[in-house]
Amino acid sequence: MNITSLHHVAYVVPDLDAAIEAYGARFGLTVDIRELMPQQQVEAAMLGAGVGAIELIAPTDPESGTARYLESRGEGLHHIAFEVDDLEAALAELKAQGAELIDELPRVGLGGHLIAFVHPRSGFGALTELVQGGAH
Amino acid sequence: MNITSLHHVAYVVPDLDAAIEAYGARFGLTVDIRELMPQQQVEAAMLGAGVGAIELIAPTDPESGTARYLESRGEGLHHIAFEVDDLEAALAELKAQGAELIDELPRVGLGGHLIAFVHPRSGFGALTELVQGGAH
Repeated sequence: MNITSLHHVAYVVPDLDAAIEAYGARFGLTVDIRELMPQQQVEAAMLGAGVGAIELIAPTDPESGTARYLESRGEGLHHIAFEVDDLEAALAELKAQGAELIDELPRVGLGGHLIAFVHPRSGFGALTELVQGGAH
Repeated sequence: MNITSLHHVAYVVPDLDAAIEAYGARFGLTVDIRELMPQQQVEAAMLGAGVGAIELIAPTDPESGTARYLESRGEGLHHIAFEVDDLEAALAELKAQGAELIDELPRVGLGGHLIAFVHPRSGFGALTELVQGGAH
């Protein structure tokens, strides 16, 4: 697999507006993309961090998986994302290794990128996203 | 604060050799730096990930803070690190905001870089490291 960069790191937060303001005040990062993602029952924002980015994710439904994650673990790191040059090839390689994929095929994520998630059991304890090439 | 990049993301792992081998097999990343850090009671390795890096940290003393973290939370994400161009200025800025700093002054971290840690209470639930400029 050819990982070309550490693409972004995501936090789960209870209130997206408050988190964007606080994150900006503390670390000086500003929003590049913000989207409601109804299928995932979250609203998400991507904040540019020079090279790399920070994603903030807030649940929009108290019954969603993200809301339960937030309730059980509190605000904090949620997933890590690597950029790869060929997502389909990377997924095929992981599957051949016996890795547990959440998305067996690329799907469209924040900002229109092709993405796929790997289960934490195959990600060294971390929910792991692969993002296909290009700028965030 | 001028964050120039997402410098690295760290995982805590129970066995550094096993984690380096497994991480390499799964994601194709290889070790750039490996160091015993007796003061922190850990051994750590930095794996280049194109732009950005992954740090793997294993406790070397079962009574250390890192060992207790691993025992209570399991293998997984441990901290996030941003690169800044002026670490002393960044720490002064955070202190003026009332942020809770673990290191009030820069100290030497993995690979000889000047680093400082911000408490998770001031890092949106994540232990947050600032690293002064330059390559990892």
